[in-house]
Amino acid sequence: MAKAPPPRTRIARSDATTVTIRGKSLMDDLIGKLSFTEMMYFLIKHRPPTPAETKVLDACLVTLMEHGFTPSSLVSRMVHDSVPDQVQVAMAAGLLTIGGVFVGTMEGCAKILKAGIEAGGDLDAYCTQVVREHIAARKPMPGFGHPFHKPDDPRPPRLFQVAESVGLNGPYVQLLHRLNGIVDREMGRHLTINATGAIGALMLEIGIPAEIMRAIAVVSRCGGLPGHILEEMEMPTARTLWALAEEHVPYEGV
Amino acid sequence: MAKAPPPRTRIARSDATTVTIRGKSLMDDLIGKLSFTEMMYFLIKHRPPTPAETKVLDACLVTLMEHGFTPSSLVSRMVHDSVPDQVQVAMAAGLLTIGGVFVGTMEGCAKILKAGIEAGGDLDAYCTQVVREHIAARKPMPGFGHPFHKPDDPRPPRLFQVAESVGLNGPYVQLLHRLNGIVDREMGRHLTINATGAIGALMLEIGIPAEIMRAIAVVSRCGGLPGHILEEMEMPTARTLWALAEEHVPYEGV
Amino acid sequence: MAKAPPPRTRIARSDATTVTIRGKSLMDDLIGKLSFTEMMYFLIKHRPPTPAETKVLDACLVTLMEHGFTPSSLVSRMVHDSVPDQVQVAMAAGLLTIGGVFVGTMEGCAKILKAGIEAGGDLDAYCTQVVREHIAARKPMPGFGHPFHKPDDPRPPRLFQVAESVGLNGPYVQLLHRLNGIVDREMGRHLTINATGAIGALMLEIGIPAEIMRAIAVVSRCGGLPGHILEEMEMPTARTLWALAEEHVPYEGV
Amino acid sequence: MAKAPPPRTRIARSDATTVTIRGKSLMDDLIGKLSFTEMMYFLIKHRPPTPAETKVLDACLVTLMEHGFTPSSLVSRMVHDSVPDQVQVAMAAGLLTIGGVFVGTMEGCAKILKAGIEAGGDLDAYCTQVVREHIAARKPMPGFGHPFHKPDDPRPPRLFQVAESVGLNGPYVQLLHRLNGIVDREMGRHLTINATGAIGALMLEIGIPAEIMRAIAVVSRCGGLPGHILEEMEMPTARTLWALAEEHVPYEGV
Repeated sequence: MAKAPPPRTRIARSDATTVTIRGKSLMDDLIGKLSFTEMMYFLIKHRPPTPAETKVLDACLVTLMEHGFTPSSLVSRMVHDSVPDQVQVAMAAGLLTIGGVFVGTMEGCAKILKAGIEAGGDLDAYCTQVVREHIAARKPMPGFGHPFHKPDDPRPPRLFQVAESVGLNGPYVQLLHRLNGIVDREMGRHLTINATGAIGALMLEIGIPAEIMRAIAVVSRCGGLPGHILEEMEMPTARTLWALAEEHVPYEGV
Repeated sequence: MAKAPPPRTRIARSDATTVTIRGKSLMDDLIGKLSFTEMMYFLIKHRPPTPAETKVLDACLVTLMEHGFTPSSLVSRMVHDSVPDQVQVAMAAGLLTIGGVFVGTMEGCAKILKAGIEAGGDLDAYCTQVVREHIAARKPMPGFGHPFHKPDDPRPPRLFQVAESVGLNGPYVQLLHRLNGIVDREMGRHLTINATGAIGALMLEIGIPAEIMRAIAVVSRCGGLPGHILEEMEMPTARTLWALAEEHVPYEGV
Repeated sequence: MAKAPPPRTRIARSDATTVTIRGKSLMDDLIGKLSFTEMMYFLIKHRPPTPAETKVLDACLVTLMEHGFTPSSLVSRMVHDSVPDQVQVAMAAGLLTIGGVFVGTMEGCAKILKAGIEAGGDLDAYCTQVVREHIAARKPMPGFGHPFHKPDDPRPPRLFQVAESVGLNGPYVQLLHRLNGIVDREMGRHLTINATGAIGALMLEIGIPAEIMRAIAVVSRCGGLPGHILEEMEMPTARTLWALAEEHVPYEGV
Repeated sequence: MAKAPPPRTRIARSDATTVTIRGKSLMDDLIGKLSFTEMMYFLIKHRPPTPAETKVLDACLVTLMEHGFTPSSLVSRMVHDSVPDQVQVAMAAGLLTIGGVFVGTMEGCAKILKAGIEAGGDLDAYCTQVVREHIAARKPMPGFGHPFHKPDDPRPPRLFQVAESVGLNGPYVQLLHRLNGIVDREMGRHLTINATGAIGALMLEIGIPAEIMRAIAVVSRCGGLPGHILEEMEMPTARTLWALAEEHVPYEGV
């Protein structure tokens, strides 16, 4: 086995008077020059995004930030009630829920799109094969369907519009639309492209690796939590949730 | 005791075809129109920020996003090694460290500044009293001093410059500078304004409540974690850290 | 400043064929010889507990393990619904709630008891002073009062009975009873000794430092979570809780 | 689709003067009568364990509680340094690491054992097929092999001895031994049964469902953390770990 290279980092170093981040001076090159979104992209890709890429990434981030009462916001609110003076604890607890069930699902769709583009060749045949494999394995198609938003999730069309407005509705977006048609044909009914499907395609267009997409969803949802924590401070709901659980989930004995 | 009002929320609701966030349509009014930073501010303040406020908030967020190996990035990397397929777990674990010891400390400084401005009157007398109370109680002055960045933290001057460039170096920033002089005089040595002190003042200038400032620090640091996770995927350090602990922290028996 | 001693550990080391824990062989001295409770005590105190100490510690642990729907079990259940294949995530999220508001409060009462015994002298005067200080500062007396269990928490009498049965109802338990009388006299109404007050006294009787008592409460509550997770797998409640939140906490707009 | 049954719980209820847990009175039937280990089993299985089952479960719990510096203890120590006054936060962060990579792996081995016993028939043929499938898929055999403990993990023989001493070395333990011989034959080299393999078999012997085994590993490891937290309070290592990371993982620029 080849020996592992010595561990090292390309991210940052600092001394008494400087902070260097990926070769740039934090003070001279980054603060006041990059937005949060541009800085996050820079930290992932080693270069700042173009204005078009920033537009698309901001649209993706804004889309996932807030969806009212969800597992992440409900858990954050309950934990805040228990640990009110350490808001990072409430936020971290809420973010633990961004898993494969809710929000953190763009990776699966992105991997299908990426493999299709890389394989080249007959995209209709590729899509048909992928969909049939999912049907045969009784697995849901990642990026399609939504429990509440029916018949169509209203967010993807707006996301595609933003991408088109800056010329970034490229091969991954096109393939997602093609896949959509074949999903409907093979399933024999209409399934919507959902927000995580659209975001998976858009993040590929701007060069975000599929492996790190869920991490970006976590950042997005994190940006919605200060608003929930502040509302919980001003008009609490956590004790109500507890009381509702006790009232509506009765003890029935062994 | 007055009966508590029935619980309610002002944040969001959705149905099959709409998502409404603080009275705005997610699709028509927010996606493609607000940046991540503007959306987070909107979720906290119920109105979008002005361009000047956005500039200052982005500068604050960029300042805290990345500082290389810190408790938050080291913990995230170690947890990622243990739970590699659930990146939200690594990120949440890292964010738990944003407490009163590191990063999450702007609240204390902001409360001192806010109380001073609200009290009005002789600000020199106010500052002198606050500093003397901290000296008497042997408590560090929040927002001052830094273990590595000496004699001066290089980040606050750049932050003040950004605020000044958009006319937001108002009363809280002025009071922080005044406090700085009195800290030095009363302590008999120079202490730097540190990044969290400057950010506390700037967030007050843009109307962010002190109680929620740590939550914004959490969002900022969260935005730095995808870069660390991706680097850990590509060139891991977690096992090295474990080996270093075993090598350098010997077992000495009971 | 004196130089810090080099870091070291007294807990454990292992090599290819041995595991040594605090000087004992895991295989020869611990597995099959100590119970979980005895082993935890051994890891804290560097010696196994006596049978009497084990009896008291088990009673404390059993008391806090399970109280039905609480923030810890509700949060664990909601997180399990989001991350069903990583049960440690649900459990960790639930344990984050064991803070100063619920369960993790024995430390405050224990510190009052410990300071009283260490000071010696007139214990009535000590108790009176402590209670009056809390009344003056409008702070609740730690270890007293309960929102649901009125007029008396049923758990402390049983805990005291167990301690008495093994001769461990010593000075801290006696002082807690004395304090109880003075709380009632000074408040002008009856407040119950609550479970965390009684447990704080009992843990002092068996030599557990106050600083680590909350950690033991976390272990106790952790022991109740497998039962909740298993029930959630078999008859889920998390989606019901979410639906109840949406139904009973309406959006009222900005 | 059949309507889901209304949500309910079989775990606990309480009122002002009683706490009922799975049909028993906490005060009359549980405190002072069950140990922590017996109570946890009772909460999972709806009946207390026999003395033999308790002996085996305690042996499993003691085996996993403590292994010195591991991801869980290192993460807990680092988080404790950042949030020193909320020990549950450090503990929860450490427990997040009990995933599929370390400690939380008994489930895989247990499922193989359970399926073999349920299938009945020729157990040698079953074992051979399972091992060959893992070899063909280049997947490690769960419950076998250890990075440090070579050639043999010293913990399983002691665990089997405890089980035998109380007559609980039944079909699952026998099948694990049979599997071990076939692993060696098919791999062409010796792989040790590791601690999680042995514990998986023992937990099946005492009726613990495979799905909840990782949760019990979490409880076990949780019981080791108070000792680490207390040691970190008395002789800290977290800052040393941070310094080691900075020293040994250099910044190499972009």
